[in-house]
Amino acid sequence: MQKNKRKIYLDNAATTAMDKGVFDKMKPYFGEIYGNPSSFHSVGKRAKDAIEEAREKVARVLNCKTSEIIFTGGGTESDNLAILGLAKIKGRGHIITSKIEHHAVLYPCEYLEKNGFEVSYIRPEKDGIISVDNILRVIKPDTFLVSIMYANNEIGTIQPIKEIARAVKKKNKNILIHTDACQAGGVFDINVDDLGVDLMTLNGSKLYGPKGVGVLYKRTGIKIEPITYGGGQEGGMRPGTENVAGIVGFSEGLELAQKNKEKENKRLIALRNKLIDGILKNISGSELNGSKELRLPNNVNISFSKVEGEAVILYLDSFGVYAATGSACTSKSLAPSHVIKALGKSDEVAHSSIRFTLGKDTKEADIKFIIKILPKIIEDLRKISVIR
Amino acid sequence: MQKNKRKIYLDNAATTAMDKGVFDKMKPYFGEIYGNPSSFHSVGKRAKDAIEEAREKVARVLNCKTSEIIFTGGGTESDNLAILGLAKIKGRGHIITSKIEHHAVLYPCEYLEKNGFEVSYIRPEKDGIISVDNILRVIKPDTFLVSIMYANNEIGTIQPIKEIARAVKKKNKNILIHTDACQAGGVFDINVDDLGVDLMTLNGSKLYGPKGVGVLYKRTGIKIEPITYGGGQEGGMRPGTENVAGIVGFSEGLELAQKNKEKENKRLIALRNKLIDGILKNISGSELNGSKELRLPNNVNISFSKVEGEAVILYLDSFGVYAATGSACTSKSLAPSHVIKALGKSDEVAHSSIRFTLGKDTKEADIKFIIKILPKIIEDLRKISVIR
Repeated sequence: MQKNKRKIYLDNAATTAMDKGVFDKMKPYFGEIYGNPSSFHSVGKRAKDAIEEAREKVARVLNCKTSEIIFTGGGTESDNLAILGLAKIKGRGHIITSKIEHHAVLYPCEYLEKNGFEVSYIRPEKDGIISVDNILRVIKPDTFLVSIMYANNEIGTIQPIKEIARAVKKKNKNILIHTDACQAGGVFDINVDDLGVDLMTLNGSKLYGPKGVGVLYKRTGIKIEPITYGGGQEGGMRPGTENVAGIVGFSEGLELAQKNKEKENKRLIALRNKLIDGILKNISGSELNGSKELRLPNNVNISFSKVEGEAVILYLDSFGVYAATGSACTSKSLAPSHVIKALGKSDEVAHSSIRFTLGKDTKEADIKFIIKILPKIIEDLRKISVIR
Repeated sequence: MQKNKRKIYLDNAATTAMDKGVFDKMKPYFGEIYGNPSSFHSVGKRAKDAIEEAREKVARVLNCKTSEIIFTGGGTESDNLAILGLAKIKGRGHIITSKIEHHAVLYPCEYLEKNGFEVSYIRPEKDGIISVDNILRVIKPDTFLVSIMYANNEIGTIQPIKEIARAVKKKNKNILIHTDACQAGGVFDINVDDLGVDLMTLNGSKLYGPKGVGVLYKRTGIKIEPITYGGGQEGGMRPGTENVAGIVGFSEGLELAQKNKEKENKRLIALRNKLIDGILKNISGSELNGSKELRLPNNVNISFSKVEGEAVILYLDSFGVYAATGSACTSKSLAPSHVIKALGKSDEVAHSSIRFTLGKDTKEADIKFIIKILPKIIEDLRKISVIR
């Protein structure tokens, strides 16, 4: 087969390449604007102003107050701050989450289970969507938190956050709603009042911004205990000298992605559907994981019978195509994807899943190239497969 | 008085300006090398390789194994991970620290005190040095950690870490030694075996590297519980997509600072002493805080009777000179410096302290300029002072 001339990066759910314009906005903060935002002098004030301007940008997108934005070191930290921070205040009680959350939500919950809390893990329907009724059914008198992701990082399914929030609050208005919106933050509307969420996690590296910076939105009046202690930065919720350049980059990335989202989503949905249809039509024994409609515009996740996902990734890599098995965070683990298993599928199907996540650099020619080479790759691998 | 033509930044303990060469080394990781280090494909591998190369650089400086380096989101996080992470494993027991630690050490200790742990806070001698004997005196059968900073961020005093580690281990080899070396990391030798420490905190933004990245050194065999949970990054100790550019910048900054330290320390000590002597000689009612000899090469901390520190900072700012009261992290607080108070000095002395921290851009002309303008500034402020 003929090699592709250009690199085709289809792992945008793992991390996006930084937008060039976003990086340009960050640059001064590695150079002339170098102060510590907590310093009392004017060099410090310039850095402080940059953070506050970034906070205003983020607050405008979320339709919230600037005081409700906490800048953190990334999505994982934001998830942990929301869940562990709230649990530290509560001391005990019941949390509802789903079986298909990112490990940054699942593992803090498992830690809390070992420390006297109770956690219900909702299994999604076969199409990867969490049923509102299934959440309502497990609410207990001491339920204090429902944490459901906005969109899944592996299979791209979009959860009915608005409906979940409304229904849960109707049953008990004191239950707080957290959503991990790392995959949705640059793609969908994240107006926190429309969504009805109390806590929301965002991540810079998934929206063409920098790695190592995230946001936790925390609605006014909600008390959480920080998970680290030190200087009083970020309202005491996240101490430590602020990553000024990162914070600026986050706000620019979020603003840009939000501005372009309608047009870009349309473009990506067309490419995504072309890729899904092209694969399912041309490769026997292939099946889509997760709902086709309630799905991130950029996500394609397909299992291929009788092949190992890792082998497909390496084969694609040799053609300059970069895809993933499961999420980046677990892709080096040999355990089958907990998300695909939660759909009720077998270990074999989970092991043979490939995720293509498109991005703003993805062209129609890239999709055509994959549709062209993938059948042969799968055929080759099936010939040598030990899975019968 | 005549204004200065160039900006004189003397707040390098709050944060250093990034080194231009360090930034150049970071740039590719905001551009062509954008992968997620956990991704299975070759784009991810390039990012992973960059992190591992950075880890090797840091390990060479510390004379430790690469597996002993945990990259974090900054010094505050590293301090918290060391102290809270160890406390979570122990469950109960006694910690020894000092009254002049950074809040990133003091506040986690105070949190632990509220949760069943016991903490002894050693008062320094009048010159700001912690006595080894005073530490040995409070060791208890259940003491599990001694956490003493290598060099103080406000008054620059250098603690006898090596002697502390040796004496504590001689009394009970199971007691672990943590040192917050944020201020010392780019200045002194930080060979962990020579120092005899088990845990050590470093911060990128204090050594001409980027903000938002730090290191916790953790000696092989020491068990700590992470403070956040998620993907398995950094040996499970610090989950979340790695800040690749930040990690690269940290390693370059550390390597560069360490390479230049002997020559640069000599130069800074000469400038520092000139500034101290010039001020003490020319301004009545001025007193040096902290030992003159056992002191960071770049630190000058002086109190001026009958003036408010903040007023001096603002006055200096109008001349393009940027200094600090206390540490950046508390400089916006109106509470007197806990460090200067711990020296046995009055609230008034604490409130009137000014910290000048020199850096690699500091020139002799800068020092001369300050010695020239400061007497008049203090005189002016004393005329309008309400402090009698």
